[in-house]
Amino acid sequence: MLEADYVTTDPDVLEAYRSDQARFGRAGQPLALARPRETREVVRILEYAHEHRIPVVPQGARTGLSGGAAAVDGAILLSLERMDRILDVDEVDHTATVQPGVVNAVLSKAVADKGLFYPPDPGSWESSTIGGNVATNAGGLCCVKYGVTSDFVRELEVVLADGRVLRTGRHTAKGVAGYDLVRLFTGSEGTLGVITEVTVALRPAAEKPLTALAFFATPVEACRTVTAYLSTGRRPSVLEFMDRATVDAVSAYRDLGFPDDVGAVLIAQSDRGPAAPDDLDAFARAARECGATEVLVASDPAEGDLLIEARRLVGVAVAQLGDQLIDDVCVPRSRLAELIDGIVAIGREHGVAVPCCGHAGDGNLHPTVVFDAADPESVRRGQAAFDAIMALGLRLGGTITGEHGVGTLKRAWLETELGEVGLSVHQAVKQAFDPRGILNPGKVIARPSC
Amino acid sequence: MLEADYVTTDPDVLEAYRSDQARFGRAGQPLALARPRETREVVRILEYAHEHRIPVVPQGARTGLSGGAAAVDGAILLSLERMDRILDVDEVDHTATVQPGVVNAVLSKAVADKGLFYPPDPGSWESSTIGGNVATNAGGLCCVKYGVTSDFVRELEVVLADGRVLRTGRHTAKGVAGYDLVRLFTGSEGTLGVITEVTVALRPAAEKPLTALAFFATPVEACRTVTAYLSTGRRPSVLEFMDRATVDAVSAYRDLGFPDDVGAVLIAQSDRGPAAPDDLDAFARAARECGATEVLVASDPAEGDLLIEARRLVGVAVAQLGDQLIDDVCVPRSRLAELIDGIVAIGREHGVAVPCCGHAGDGNLHPTVVFDAADPESVRRGQAAFDAIMALGLRLGGTITGEHGVGTLKRAWLETELGEVGLSVHQAVKQAFDPRGILNPGKVIARPSC
Repeated sequence: MLEADYVTTDPDVLEAYRSDQARFGRAGQPLALARPRETREVVRILEYAHEHRIPVVPQGARTGLSGGAAAVDGAILLSLERMDRILDVDEVDHTATVQPGVVNAVLSKAVADKGLFYPPDPGSWESSTIGGNVATNAGGLCCVKYGVTSDFVRELEVVLADGRVLRTGRHTAKGVAGYDLVRLFTGSEGTLGVITEVTVALRPAAEKPLTALAFFATPVEACRTVTAYLSTGRRPSVLEFMDRATVDAVSAYRDLGFPDDVGAVLIAQSDRGPAAPDDLDAFARAARECGATEVLVASDPAEGDLLIEARRLVGVAVAQLGDQLIDDVCVPRSRLAELIDGIVAIGREHGVAVPCCGHAGDGNLHPTVVFDAADPESVRRGQAAFDAIMALGLRLGGTITGEHGVGTLKRAWLETELGEVGLSVHQAVKQAFDPRGILNPGKVIARPSC
Repeated sequence: MLEADYVTTDPDVLEAYRSDQARFGRAGQPLALARPRETREVVRILEYAHEHRIPVVPQGARTGLSGGAAAVDGAILLSLERMDRILDVDEVDHTATVQPGVVNAVLSKAVADKGLFYPPDPGSWESSTIGGNVATNAGGLCCVKYGVTSDFVRELEVVLADGRVLRTGRHTAKGVAGYDLVRLFTGSEGTLGVITEVTVALRPAAEKPLTALAFFATPVEACRTVTAYLSTGRRPSVLEFMDRATVDAVSAYRDLGFPDDVGAVLIAQSDRGPAAPDDLDAFARAARECGATEVLVASDPAEGDLLIEARRLVGVAVAQLGDQLIDDVCVPRSRLAELIDGIVAIGREHGVAVPCCGHAGDGNLHPTVVFDAADPESVRRGQAAFDAIMALGLRLGGTITGEHGVGTLKRAWLETELGEVGLSVHQAVKQAFDPRGILNPGKVIARPSC
């Protein structure tokens, strides 16, 4: 094995790095864990792995939900967590250059101190890393206004499968010189190269958001509100949905004084400072016109914090219900109501609870299948419901994953989504970047059957 | 040759389709021109070309400035101009699905009639096609606020080199299922596949813009204004720069009553309706604080039309000066003043006029080398100035092309920008998509030397 002070084969340490946050799907037995501090150490690992045809599994903070960072048998786990330096924050060009192991929250704080703003805010932002965010093209609550991680990535340093170092993209706001390899690496889940440096675009700091909350008798009125509000041309900085089961779970966990019999909730925010009250008035108007039973508009950011508490509590409240499998489907906005109704029906059919919340403004929901991991029959029913939700998403013109990625969890479904030609093009791209198949093998697309 | 009613070998017709708008670089002698009306005809052409190893040059409206659509010897010119149907405009999901030959202005008008807005607005928008815009990842004036073409492309149908039909991307606002092939095709200048259908995102219609104009003694103050204004977090819908030589050319063409001795001009627009006057006040304040000699703010859109007339006249005014070679470099905003000063010095050194205007908010300028095509010495000096500008752009941390593309004009410079590893990855990608090298060979990257 590669001898270096950043490589360990200690079984206890390996065990700790073996998995990410995915349910189902078995993590393999790794050979070693490498925690390099510099690009040239990553180069050495890749050269060694390439020469000896050893699989390499790049890892960030292992907060992923799809198994993308889980070990495969005989692999070197390549954790980028020690490459955690912020190399530059440019206050004129509004860019930051970081090593991949910088935690999202650390970068966000560092740039906020300079009056700047890094928008991508995945749920895991307090622990997940920029490298992991780029590798999975992470989303978050503010995508509806600001876009996803890939909308902010300008330049990458990537160590290729054979150890060569590629710099790609550019520091400038625009550029069309050559193929867009930055976007190709972004979201490729470690299957095409190992990201060792990232330059992201920043924005001037936004104002503290104001918040509004609207209650509806059924999801249909909430979905109609989403469409009506976005057609005004206003871009909320947050536009979240919670269904009845989610609201019930939150209310059971903490009494927030919600009205009885809430069929659906929308939470909207605007961070446009002096224009925010007007934005939220427009939201309230749209909600009432679409049949909201009640609308609350916070008069200041602190009151808004109270209103958005329900959304913040979803994770912990739903966790009280049992074991969870968090799904992630995205459909065109016009099909959102059908998706929500369909999820309720799927839960009923398979006898599992599926509370559902998510980024309504983007059509991206997170139905959470609740099951009992100790009961094989419950696991089976949970998995069946999970599959049924993905099939429904595709049937509605959507995608099997809006922001969580494919990993191993959704690999079979990806083949369905891509179709035969799409899959074969994916395989050709993978082959071009990683002819020996050492980079995160079996993730996103299956290993070649040969 | 392929027998079909959409294929012609008439020499006069071929001659008319042989070139795009690029200067320098020789267009080849094509074998035939195909003008299919449907995807299955494109499939037939590609199958034939693939089998017989015949080069295929995809063409939109041939308004490109880099030779990307120019014929290569022995090629089938594949014009998509007859595939010009708007297939769908979705007023709820804010998308449009079009064939590639739809002219940008036609789409813009069609969606405007429904209260929607397709932002990408390359200079050629009244004649260039959506397929061509996607193939070159076209920019325009409004990029500074809305982004470039690739920010709007959601889904593509692409006929691959061997005639297989790939659908890639998705209708949804978000999605991370598989590699981002949409972005890989976008801007690949017809070298990876032939785009036969495009779904773009739309936005609700913006308000009519208000306009402000600021005059400066030198470019430095103008560049400082750009930085200061963008740091306020406001996003102008237009932020254009014109240097002294451009203003002089415009004034010589038409007296707009500009003050004497203008060293630089900035034009800003805001389309935020009721917030626009406030935006322009902030711009005026930033300009004055940075040393503007005069600032004019239009009080209504009609007055704004007068103020922006200077920018509209640049093309025709500069054309009076002689033959033109329009360059396109993009640098980080912080280096804009150095770029502008450097361009003046290059013009002086090589004895050619280089009026310079462009999209200052993105750091993307179009220095236009003026020369006499009938005088070989003038041509030589023009080319040398052109090269020197690209070298300068790279030296300032920029790119050789912000929005016009590589084609054949900048192929050698692309190698410099990409570097050895970058070039080899580009070649591997090209090889994966087009192993026989029939798709627009010699464009963007050189043909393999074998």
